[in-house]
Amino acid sequence: MFSDIMKNVKAKSPLINVITNFVTVNDCANILLAAGASPCMAYDIREVEDIVSISQGLVINLGAIEDDRAMLLSTKKANEMKIPVIFDPVAAGASRLRNDLCTEFLQNVKFSVIRGNISEIKSLALGSSTTKGVDAADADEITENNISEVVKMAKSLSEKTGSVIAISGKTDVVADHQRAYIIKNGHPMMALITGSGCMLTTLICAYCAANPDRIFESTAAAVCTMGVCGEYAYQKTIDTDTGTSSFRNYLIDYVSKLDSEMIEERMKLEVY
Amino acid sequence: MFSDIMKNVKAKSPLINVITNFVTVNDCANILLAAGASPCMAYDIREVEDIVSISQGLVINLGAIEDDRAMLLSTKKANEMKIPVIFDPVAAGASRLRNDLCTEFLQNVKFSVIRGNISEIKSLALGSSTTKGVDAADADEITENNISEVVKMAKSLSEKTGSVIAISGKTDVVADHQRAYIIKNGHPMMALITGSGCMLTTLICAYCAANPDRIFESTAAAVCTMGVCGEYAYQKTIDTDTGTSSFRNYLIDYVSKLDSEMIEERMKLEVY
Amino acid sequence: MFSDIMKNVKAKSPLINVITNFVTVNDCANILLAAGASPCMAYDIREVEDIVSISQGLVINLGAIEDDRAMLLSTKKANEMKIPVIFDPVAAGASRLRNDLCTEFLQNVKFSVIRGNISEIKSLALGSSTTKGVDAADADEITENNISEVVKMAKSLSEKTGSVIAISGKTDVVADHQRAYIIKNGHPMMALITGSGCMLTTLICAYCAANPDRIFESTAAAVCTMGVCGEYAYQKTIDTDTGTSSFRNYLIDYVSKLDSEMIEERMKLEVY
Repeated sequence: MFSDIMKNVKAKSPLINVITNFVTVNDCANILLAAGASPCMAYDIREVEDIVSISQGLVINLGAIEDDRAMLLSTKKANEMKIPVIFDPVAAGASRLRNDLCTEFLQNVKFSVIRGNISEIKSLALGSSTTKGVDAADADEITENNISEVVKMAKSLSEKTGSVIAISGKTDVVADHQRAYIIKNGHPMMALITGSGCMLTTLICAYCAANPDRIFESTAAAVCTMGVCGEYAYQKTIDTDTGTSSFRNYLIDYVSKLDSEMIEERMKLEVY
Repeated sequence: MFSDIMKNVKAKSPLINVITNFVTVNDCANILLAAGASPCMAYDIREVEDIVSISQGLVINLGAIEDDRAMLLSTKKANEMKIPVIFDPVAAGASRLRNDLCTEFLQNVKFSVIRGNISEIKSLALGSSTTKGVDAADADEITENNISEVVKMAKSLSEKTGSVIAISGKTDVVADHQRAYIIKNGHPMMALITGSGCMLTTLICAYCAANPDRIFESTAAAVCTMGVCGEYAYQKTIDTDTGTSSFRNYLIDYVSKLDSEMIEERMKLEVY
Repeated sequence: MFSDIMKNVKAKSPLINVITNFVTVNDCANILLAAGASPCMAYDIREVEDIVSISQGLVINLGAIEDDRAMLLSTKKANEMKIPVIFDPVAAGASRLRNDLCTEFLQNVKFSVIRGNISEIKSLALGSSTTKGVDAADADEITENNISEVVKMAKSLSEKTGSVIAISGKTDVVADHQRAYIIKNGHPMMALITGSGCMLTTLICAYCAANPDRIFESTAAAVCTMGVCGEYAYQKTIDTDTGTSSFRNYLIDYVSKLDSEMIEERMKLEVY
């Protein structure tokens, strides 16, 4: 189902500029390379427009919030060029500054995809502020009981922003204004390493940059990739009797080893 | 002995804000998650007070020295809230700027714990400047001959600052103004990776944030955790015929796998 | 052949200050420690001169381009002290800012070694601008057909700058104005992790700082070290059925395990 999308990443090796936080930047660069893309992490305001002009995709990760000027300059350039821009509203809801910047970005930038945890997406969609730092609040967990409400919120945010919305967690949701997928891959150990979310956002950008006419499907393919690789990585962690740090390495390892058969064997995707 | 302290970290999952250097920040976030805490690395001066106001602990790591304004703003807020603030005076003694900032911090901030290598702590206590960059000077090694002098210095610095003092190295010392523990766990390979010290400081903060009434014991528990995990990680490095980089992963792996039995089996702690 | 050079690194444990980008800084610190050197990553303009004054080597990595003021201050101090300064012109050719800064650095700084991929070195030597972000352009690959031209360019750049030139890629070239080595070690998986180039530059600095009278040979030794460790790391990746992220760890592992016999057994170095 996603075979072509993945092949295009390796064939085109899109250059992705990532303006991101210093906590997980190395993981983001490595997952791009593992998938077959080429990373660049330029954020100096004197050059971001030059770098974006040779890129095929742009990631705006709000973690490194002090780079907001570079973010605005580069998104403007990327929108002019009509290349995919992916937004990761890290810890939206956790400070007034983050809320203000999210409002400013949503007003001024056309994002192809917005990817966050449920607390972050709720903060964008509803203005609620229950985010616990960079992690989702427990009260926000997606369950059988509230899934229809969550999908409705995602579709509504998509209609408002024109972006595909990706909500990651135990259950993942990918939605545009009229369609939604529910994806139930992944493993709880992904929440015990930093960077699972940032890496997913970056991977979505690589998939979209290589398939700019298939943003919705490419986003779903990237979400499935991370979830399935998380499952393989957990099995390897058990087999080698290691723990969370080795798991992080195995997660990236499997992105580098993955083919579409390995995804399709385990993929748990439903149209909602 | 430390069973409750460790259980509280997993049960409360305290949110720890860490203002730290860009070299080891990813390791610090991952060790917090491995221990069961929740990391946040906010340092933008426009939001640090907001983020500290929802946190249960704060780490000030002097590595990223250019964030000194964010450090001062956030410590003031944390002291008002009476949450634990842990200080890591990275490379104290290695430049005039670092010495000046240490003096300023010690005058204006109430730290629950100060954690450094012997050269850094000597620099704070005595004003000596023998630090070799971020590593302890060889001349400063703790031995049987000078241990009583080192403990006396630590107790005296604790009396002056009101902080628990943790000195890490081949022999670790944890002291307040009247008590001291000597801890002889760990492995020399811990000195062959970057971040052993930064990770320990961060782990101390998680333990203290989950046990704010037991700062002295929580600090000792975190020091034992790192030492014991270093020993297990070294054994795994030998078993897998790997080297220093894999050792770093195994160190964090064991923090994620550790229970109090695994600590108590190997713990070499003496009241001094 | 390189036995003394490697032994001197472990015996002297030179302090290396590295002004570098936030993407691969952790890997650079860890490879220095693995080789037996001592890393420091000071870049605050208020202290870089103090830190350089106690260092034995300095790395200027253009990735973190916004630190250009710290770079200029620290290189001036290092040149006064006559310690080796190694330049990594990351993504030279990819933006006007990078080209301008490279010109400024080459005019004002005496570099012992300049290390880049073929696109970056061409950009410095010829003013061409084909760099694809941080990766070499495919069109720039070194082949049997153009190797003599590449060596000639390297020698000419060495003559102009007074620096040893190291070009890394599938085939590596190390040249001064009259001599050149061709080195054919390494593995393609090195291009699938971030930091291979940055780590090599940093390792060159450690080798040169411990052997300041043998810059040409020390550079070649570091290039061979990385290539040979890449080969061992790839074999370990296959043996453990892992992928690119584990490969990165194994690469650093082998630097920590390497002795001169392990290098000489696999080294493919020719005088050109």
